[in-house]
Amino acid sequence: MFNRITILGTGLLGTSVGLALRAAGFTGHIAGWSRTKEQVHVALHMGAIDAVADDPIAAARESEVVVLSMPIFATLDFMAQLSGRLTPDHLVTDVGSTKRLISESAAQLYNKPNCPAFLPGHPMAGKERGGAALADANLYRGAVWLFTDDAYARRTPRAAELVQVWRGWVAAIGSRVIDLDPVRHDELVAWVSHLPQFVATAMSALLEEEVGNAPELKDVGGRALREMTRLGASPYTMWRDIAHTNTEAVERVLQAMEQRLTYLRENLRTPALRGEFDQANRFRRE
Amino acid sequence: MFNRITILGTGLLGTSVGLALRAAGFTGHIAGWSRTKEQVHVALHMGAIDAVADDPIAAARESEVVVLSMPIFATLDFMAQLSGRLTPDHLVTDVGSTKRLISESAAQLYNKPNCPAFLPGHPMAGKERGGAALADANLYRGAVWLFTDDAYARRTPRAAELVQVWRGWVAAIGSRVIDLDPVRHDELVAWVSHLPQFVATAMSALLEEEVGNAPELKDVGGRALREMTRLGASPYTMWRDIAHTNTEAVERVLQAMEQRLTYLRENLRTPALRGEFDQANRFRRE
Repeated sequence: MFNRITILGTGLLGTSVGLALRAAGFTGHIAGWSRTKEQVHVALHMGAIDAVADDPIAAARESEVVVLSMPIFATLDFMAQLSGRLTPDHLVTDVGSTKRLISESAAQLYNKPNCPAFLPGHPMAGKERGGAALADANLYRGAVWLFTDDAYARRTPRAAELVQVWRGWVAAIGSRVIDLDPVRHDELVAWVSHLPQFVATAMSALLEEEVGNAPELKDVGGRALREMTRLGASPYTMWRDIAHTNTEAVERVLQAMEQRLTYLRENLRTPALRGEFDQANRFRRE
Repeated sequence: MFNRITILGTGLLGTSVGLALRAAGFTGHIAGWSRTKEQVHVALHMGAIDAVADDPIAAARESEVVVLSMPIFATLDFMAQLSGRLTPDHLVTDVGSTKRLISESAAQLYNKPNCPAFLPGHPMAGKERGGAALADANLYRGAVWLFTDDAYARRTPRAAELVQVWRGWVAAIGSRVIDLDPVRHDELVAWVSHLPQFVATAMSALLEEEVGNAPELKDVGGRALREMTRLGASPYTMWRDIAHTNTEAVERVLQAMEQRLTYLRENLRTPALRGEFDQANRFRRE
């Protein structure tokens, strides 16, 4: 059991964690902090947190569980700042989109004797635009929530208990938990998350050049175009950190995608086109 | 005014035309025909047509307006078959996804003295799976319906009247009409329709190879992955005709997309990545 949680970073994901915990029946105290004062006051106003923390380190020390919900480099910064100020009775977890560097930092600064516990986490949920105002108690319902390094985080009985209870809350807010090795995590999300994002960004940027000055032509594309470019609205600041911390895996999947498009283009009038459609149909079969 | 319409091809689009006309208050007679007997009986059962035609040519002769709703090569075949059997008091129109070849055929076989009228059309609506059973009276609501060669189709007073009335019904079923030159049409839809489709097909085929044997990994991608691969379910038979009749334009846009992905991949860790996200954000701004 735990009764005090601090959410550092009350943007879309962090504020949604607070709302979802409340909706699932969490009755303990939720403190919130954000680098942007406006965001944390929106979170307070929405009922996602009970109190605004002035000092994120002090708030973390006063709680039992700390959720870091911010871009990856900021997460790494806070991991370094917090590790020396917390005790083995604290569990820190995060929601960052890549896990290899965070897992390495956790192995160095946490999950060792006299160190706090750290459980790397990654909910596969979000919206194409961020911010506390778009937060939603149901954001994580039906989503997969990935964890890495679960065994390392459970080093002491108290840490194991906190990990178990946190996983229980993640399930209670509607997510399906899957454990993965951190390197495998980063390879997998390069395929199923980073590939769709970077393809949508490239396609949206290209189309902006071609038809961006003719709004009525955008409408011609209809639902298919809207869907395929929705992620074009995603913010650079979040994706820069992903591009920097999963570069090799993303390079591999983008190169594979380029080659696949080339193959399709070279076979627009050959029977091989049927093979590509058949294979794509298989991916979408129920 | 006209009182008799024949829909040749009662798949998703043709059956939806019938349903939409009825919902919008068309009280005339709607005949339907499909190469696949099952499809036309589904259309009859759904109330999209009043009668099943045994002979498509005879049914066309007995009506004033004929809607060809079938893949492009089948449309071209029917255009050739029908032109010699219809009179200047008949208007034929279609819903095919490319317009250059259909416009050329219309100029040769229709829209001349003693020939029937032909108005090339293209509703920007559909679903990733076809068939009469998925037809919907609201399919065309809010969609753009493109026409080419409007002026050529209006050669006689009666043809002009039929064109005007048909355009009125297209508006009545909720579509927004835009006129385009047929070559410009094919270039434009290569960008806003064919590009998203072939990208979704290539990405779905690639992902089927990578994670297709692990269904739980598909779920990891969440909404973003589902949206970006929904069109992966699109049928080869329809898209083969598009690939064959708009090859050069599709090659150009796919090559541009490959180059854009390469540029993005080569700049994952440079400031140019911000430029790509900014440009993509602009495409999605309200």
